[in-house]
Amino acid sequence: MKLEQAFGSVLRKKRLEKNYTQEALAHSCKVDRTFIGLLERSKRQPTITTIFKLCKALDVKPSEIFIEIESMVDL
Amino acid sequence: MKLEQAFGSVLRKKRLEKNYTQEALAHSCKVDRTFIGLLERSKRQPTITTIFKLCKALDVKPSEIFIEIESMVDL
Repeated sequence: MKLEQAFGSVLRKKRLEKNYTQEALAHSCKVDRTFIGLLERSKRQPTITTIFKLCKALDVKPSEIFIEIESMVDL
Repeated sequence: MKLEQAFGSVLRKKRLEKNYTQEALAHSCKVDRTFIGLLERSKRQPTITTIFKLCKALDVKPSEIFIEIESMVDL
């Protein structure tokens, strides 16, 4: 999988695991709902600040997200 | 430490550990030298693609960078 796609797919997976809708996740991170969709479809890349906000809302560590991404892409 | 500063300080630490100059790191990542300085001084935030490029050049995993950042900031 391409790197740009990996973050979006891990974000989506974590969101669904927590039974969040895109709206609910966007609300808890104080970002626009469409931004979550753009991230999940890899149309946007998040800054580190956004990564930490998303991870706080999803109760997962950013390092865990990156461990999953590393397992999905050829480093 | 503020989140925005943590990445810059970890990047600088890893670069110095590997005895890279900003120029050498910029060259190996095919980014402008000034961009490395801006990242280290937290004037810019990297995309995930840039994070992976920097980590490849520094021979460190992105997840390791994030584990260090997590230890430096209040989550």
